[in-house]
Amino acid sequence: MIEYRSLRVALLGGGTVGSQVARLLLEHADELAARAGARIELTGIAVRDVDAKRDVDLPHELFTTDAESLILGADIVVELIGGLEPARTLVLQAINSGADVVTANKALLATHGPELFEAAEQVGAQLAYEAAVGGAIPIIRPLRDSMAGDTVDRILGIVNGTTNYILDRMDTTGDSLESALAAATALGYAEADPTADIEGYDAAQKAAILASLAFHTLVPVEQVHREGITGVTAAQVESARKAGYVVKLLAICERLRDPDTGDEAVSARVYPAMVDRAHPLAAVHGANNAVFVEASAAGDLMFYGAGAGGAETASAVLGDLVAVVRRHVAGGPGIAESTHAELPVLDIGQVTTRYAVTIEVLDQPGVLAAIAQIFAAHGVSVEQLEQTLSDDAGRATLVIGTHEARESSLADTVAALAADPVVDQVTSVLRVEGA
Amino acid sequence: MIEYRSLRVALLGGGTVGSQVARLLLEHADELAARAGARIELTGIAVRDVDAKRDVDLPHELFTTDAESLILGADIVVELIGGLEPARTLVLQAINSGADVVTANKALLATHGPELFEAAEQVGAQLAYEAAVGGAIPIIRPLRDSMAGDTVDRILGIVNGTTNYILDRMDTTGDSLESALAAATALGYAEADPTADIEGYDAAQKAAILASLAFHTLVPVEQVHREGITGVTAAQVESARKAGYVVKLLAICERLRDPDTGDEAVSARVYPAMVDRAHPLAAVHGANNAVFVEASAAGDLMFYGAGAGGAETASAVLGDLVAVVRRHVAGGPGIAESTHAELPVLDIGQVTTRYAVTIEVLDQPGVLAAIAQIFAAHGVSVEQLEQTLSDDAGRATLVIGTHEARESSLADTVAALAADPVVDQVTSVLRVEGA
Repeated sequence: MIEYRSLRVALLGGGTVGSQVARLLLEHADELAARAGARIELTGIAVRDVDAKRDVDLPHELFTTDAESLILGADIVVELIGGLEPARTLVLQAINSGADVVTANKALLATHGPELFEAAEQVGAQLAYEAAVGGAIPIIRPLRDSMAGDTVDRILGIVNGTTNYILDRMDTTGDSLESALAAATALGYAEADPTADIEGYDAAQKAAILASLAFHTLVPVEQVHREGITGVTAAQVESARKAGYVVKLLAICERLRDPDTGDEAVSARVYPAMVDRAHPLAAVHGANNAVFVEASAAGDLMFYGAGAGGAETASAVLGDLVAVVRRHVAGGPGIAESTHAELPVLDIGQVTTRYAVTIEVLDQPGVLAAIAQIFAAHGVSVEQLEQTLSDDAGRATLVIGTHEARESSLADTVAALAADPVVDQVTSVLRVEGA
Repeated sequence: MIEYRSLRVALLGGGTVGSQVARLLLEHADELAARAGARIELTGIAVRDVDAKRDVDLPHELFTTDAESLILGADIVVELIGGLEPARTLVLQAINSGADVVTANKALLATHGPELFEAAEQVGAQLAYEAAVGGAIPIIRPLRDSMAGDTVDRILGIVNGTTNYILDRMDTTGDSLESALAAATALGYAEADPTADIEGYDAAQKAAILASLAFHTLVPVEQVHREGITGVTAAQVESARKAGYVVKLLAICERLRDPDTGDEAVSARVYPAMVDRAHPLAAVHGANNAVFVEASAAGDLMFYGAGAGGAETASAVLGDLVAVVRRHVAGGPGIAESTHAELPVLDIGQVTTRYAVTIEVLDQPGVLAAIAQIFAAHGVSVEQLEQTLSDDAGRATLVIGTHEARESSLADTVAALAADPVVDQVTSVLRVEGA
């Protein structure tokens, strides 16, 4: 039996993920020591209430409310508190006390990433965060290391399991958003307050992290355009289905040109969009996640798996922990984040994509020409126009598919349509992605 | 403009991948320097014939036939010669001269992996090989780092693009193996001598590498059971299709119990198998690759993308190169391979899986009972038995689906079936995987 040295690991947070991490650390202590080259000694779990009920039965003496003392004696700190404070302060304390850090905290990285990366680089600390995006799906290390020599052109990510469950259910059952959300809540896929998921905040944080990695550019979450799924109707999903599309909430990170200057730039945005059913992302069902990466040399790649869950996320945390221990034992500093490119992040208005616009119009001669003229006047090129049968009230429904157009031009077009007397209402505007 | 230090990189091999690596290194020199923290100075490309025609136009003065001299002055050696020798000798020379090594050589790793890992560990050299499996698909680092804290239970990999193209074409067009192979050759997906692909040698090497990583156990290619696709018939593919399955050549790495001792063990094997059309691997078309990983905590993951091609494989080589340069600059040794588990590799006869057996029998009373008795006598439990209409000659076709059974028991069953007077012939035996 090999005698391994011990590394002292402090766990901050004893929630769903934290208790699974602690359980796996204790259950697999010998195996993890052999893999990592050192015993991972769990010195304590900092929580708000040491007597709170846990998902997992863990030794009571491990729990403490004194996170700061726990950090002081640690070689490695695993931060699973979530949210911005006290997580930010504690992670900075850990780094500055000489510890390496593993975190699953997407909000923290998306908001204070630059400060944390800078602090880690100053002292040569490792800062690992595979669990922050895509739960158990390895996506951080593939982007940071395996693809470090390639040019990532675009990432389309289904990175929020709750909204994917809801949209998938709307697609397969015809449910309204409300009843699909109710089902998600009943199954534990949605939290009591689902705002962070359904309004796209969670996905926007992940988009910021993915864009930063993919484009070697710090993209703070404030620069991620965000729209949630609360505006998605059963009629939109049904209409997309009939046209061969499925509506997905996408986190999109794109390398593109500034339309005004022609300079290289990037965009990070989150919104519900129509995806062709032949696209691999269309087959991502339920609460699963997938990240589709388009790169210059590698071509199209996809990473797929469970995006959340205590054990699943704990898997990613433990992978980071073993990798960090290996490096800690071998010696040598952490590798600093690569943020040299400093590409500008485009405003949503400057981004181009394709659109499906549904409008109700008065069914009278010359209407089609008038509508087409409105699109043309704003520089939006129509690829396809379909008129459905008119109703008894003399109204017809038009579905217009555009070529790539600038977001601001499309917005102007929609405003002009809504103001035109032949238009009864603009029923739906959805972006089309993945072509 | 930051002044970076230079690292001297020697490229061994100027073929399809090597010339793409050289092209990308030269085209993206500034960007790669900024990402890696050092300029990657390509000092030369060792080839057999400096005047041979290349896919890419590269400066003639880079080429040399003197690989050994090139290695001597290098900080990092990129080995893209392929095959066992002189690749093995040159990689060992590189390691022993103090260089880090990046290789895409699956044959070398699957055969001499232990020797190379040992040599690298002795001197603290980095040895990176993301490109050896799955072309551009990041799978080595995800398994080695991101999943280092989890227990991998099974890997099902489509890791050979040529055979996936052929089987996919047989499935979609009804082609025979011969005409699907001819199509693959015409499209450049199959080489003039397709033996390494269609006989499963390429997939077996990749299975050895994946199993070694996943199970922390050195699995040499000689211990990988290997069957190619040359025995797969259009009738088998058609019959599988009708039953809701697709035939895929799978590289299977499995953690299981020795059926005799109950001890923990592993299996690595390559053969064509039936996969349920609802399984994510069934949707992997053309020459694409995918690796499906089942892990205890992470659940099911899939990694998908182009499995071959010069630029695609070069992407993985460059990712490794940037990661190796970063560590070279930061300091600290390479991380040794984790091979501590030393689990026994089971013989194919000890492995259990499910089977679909097709036999032609005399259509007479008592035959079904006789057949069922043969299965039962060998301990193979029948899950499903379907008899098709008998033909004019008084023969019927039986398709028998089994529960999980031991490979040796199934072999004995098939031998007994073939010897029984009521059996005209055993038409097809295919394993069923992925359930």
